[in-house]
Amino acid sequence: MATIKIALLGFGTVGRGVYEVIQSHQNTLYEQTDSHIEVSAVLVQHPNQQRELPEHILVTDSIEDILKTDIHIVIEAIVGENPAYPYLKQAIEKGCHVITANKAMFANHGDELNQLATEHGVKVGYEATTAGGIPIIRTLQQLRVNQVQRIEGILNGTSNYILSKMADEQLEFDDALAQAKELGYAEADPANDIEGLDAFYKLMILSDTAFSSQPDWSDVMINGIKGITLDHIKETISSGKVIKHVATIQNEDGALRASVQPMLLSPDHPLASIKGVDNAITIDTDLLGKVTLQGPGAGRYPTASALLEDLVSVVKEEVQTSVPYRLQKHLQIVKG
Amino acid sequence: MATIKIALLGFGTVGRGVYEVIQSHQNTLYEQTDSHIEVSAVLVQHPNQQRELPEHILVTDSIEDILKTDIHIVIEAIVGENPAYPYLKQAIEKGCHVITANKAMFANHGDELNQLATEHGVKVGYEATTAGGIPIIRTLQQLRVNQVQRIEGILNGTSNYILSKMADEQLEFDDALAQAKELGYAEADPANDIEGLDAFYKLMILSDTAFSSQPDWSDVMINGIKGITLDHIKETISSGKVIKHVATIQNEDGALRASVQPMLLSPDHPLASIKGVDNAITIDTDLLGKVTLQGPGAGRYPTASALLEDLVSVVKEEVQTSVPYRLQKHLQIVKG
Repeated sequence: MATIKIALLGFGTVGRGVYEVIQSHQNTLYEQTDSHIEVSAVLVQHPNQQRELPEHILVTDSIEDILKTDIHIVIEAIVGENPAYPYLKQAIEKGCHVITANKAMFANHGDELNQLATEHGVKVGYEATTAGGIPIIRTLQQLRVNQVQRIEGILNGTSNYILSKMADEQLEFDDALAQAKELGYAEADPANDIEGLDAFYKLMILSDTAFSSQPDWSDVMINGIKGITLDHIKETISSGKVIKHVATIQNEDGALRASVQPMLLSPDHPLASIKGVDNAITIDTDLLGKVTLQGPGAGRYPTASALLEDLVSVVKEEVQTSVPYRLQKHLQIVKG
Repeated sequence: MATIKIALLGFGTVGRGVYEVIQSHQNTLYEQTDSHIEVSAVLVQHPNQQRELPEHILVTDSIEDILKTDIHIVIEAIVGENPAYPYLKQAIEKGCHVITANKAMFANHGDELNQLATEHGVKVGYEATTAGGIPIIRTLQQLRVNQVQRIEGILNGTSNYILSKMADEQLEFDDALAQAKELGYAEADPANDIEGLDAFYKLMILSDTAFSSQPDWSDVMINGIKGITLDHIKETISSGKVIKHVATIQNEDGALRASVQPMLLSPDHPLASIKGVDNAITIDTDLLGKVTLQGPGAGRYPTASALLEDLVSVVKEEVQTSVPYRLQKHLQIVKG
């Protein structure tokens, strides 16, 4: 039986989730990949902290030590652009497939990583960067006949939770934000969420996926929900509308126009009924018309799920294609 | 340049849509498949009727005449189980890939056709059978780590249109049905739609896809929307609920339990806000939680889109896999 060795970069909520699911879904993973999927290294900031991981797993703060071992796939769940970007670059150059949940990093460097991966005959999975467990990246990648004209999404669960709470329970912004923090839906420093940057990064990743390019970042208007008061919410309710934080990108004769901002939606708009921490994305294409995907936009298991679905795809694709990738060689050696 | 020859079985709304899109999206299809996609035969009931098709296309009522020619892929958009089923069987036995939009046929014979296709090294595409252009089949097929526990859907656009109209405009059932007929959303004989059989067929196809089996058909309660009156609708509105026609299947410790029936939903249920002829499906899995896909459940271009996305997938997969399928040989001969 072949073994596929995984390195986890980061062991926070998502990293732990991936580790847990690899244990709990060992049989399913085996059936799908014909291989034993084994976490053999974990990159953390403080390696000496107690973690109850089996002894055979290398726990280290050194990416170099990890890449010296016989790792096939790197799953990255660190926060922020650095050091995730140089780490994944190194991993690709070593011949590893990489799978990431890191939106800030991938919005900035996705294109470079994809190119580098092509040069090295490996794959990049990034479903988990955008809208948690909703399979939006895969859906866009597989629209091959359809031309996407417009994408509209609720991409930040924290903002949507706050707006839903304000409307349903007539709360002021600060009270709704405090509730979101209590429930773990907002970080101690929620700036990225409530100022729109988190949704912006995800929109740029959707743009790369649907249109193979991004608009100039300085041309994108980014407004968060910070300025919205209970009075605004009451006004919109009495006018029969709903305020949602919407990220939009559209192709206007070849030019991409994007914005991230609170918008007034009529109740029959597909994004109007999205409540709580859910995310939703509406794709508008020439043939299909409007298709909307809705689901959990974050959370340990939905995000781990997206990373592991990517992992199985990468392994399956490698076994299928005739290109002699590194892992395929490895499998042949093990099987032969 | 390789040419991939297509036969269209049926030239009604959907068949014509496929023909049109193959012409209008010729460049996209070429970019995606590296081949010229050509409709070279059309099966119709009355071949002498005027159709304004180019002369090089064989227009015939004989499947035998079509399968005698050098067809690679058969796209079927006939209504009803027969003769679609024997025609596709013959096509597979001749070594053709088949792609179908025929739910009654595929609910009955999908499993046999898939097995036969495996034996003959060809593929079966059936995205268009269920929920029109919504990529639900593909999404289910690609949930490889997640275990699907429950699927719930609004699968019949006609029924949803009638229920939406009754609620929004306080119409009696017969008046809403008459409007649906006028707009072309209901057939002259709407029995399959309003009695629940259409949704049932689609549910059985989802069952095959998610659970690799179907429940015993005689155990599935099938109720349509025929008995619903405006009084029922008014009562549900005053109780703060919504009536929707919902098809449900769930895995209960290995046993599949299914039903197709009108249900009372709370307004925050993901299917409660689906209006008009749209379809929507909620998948509930162990890791992802609930993901809902919503979009046009029928119509010429959404259905043609699903058929042509399947076509591109079949061609791409064939080129990728190392199994020497018939088409791949053909491509090699043409290229060499």
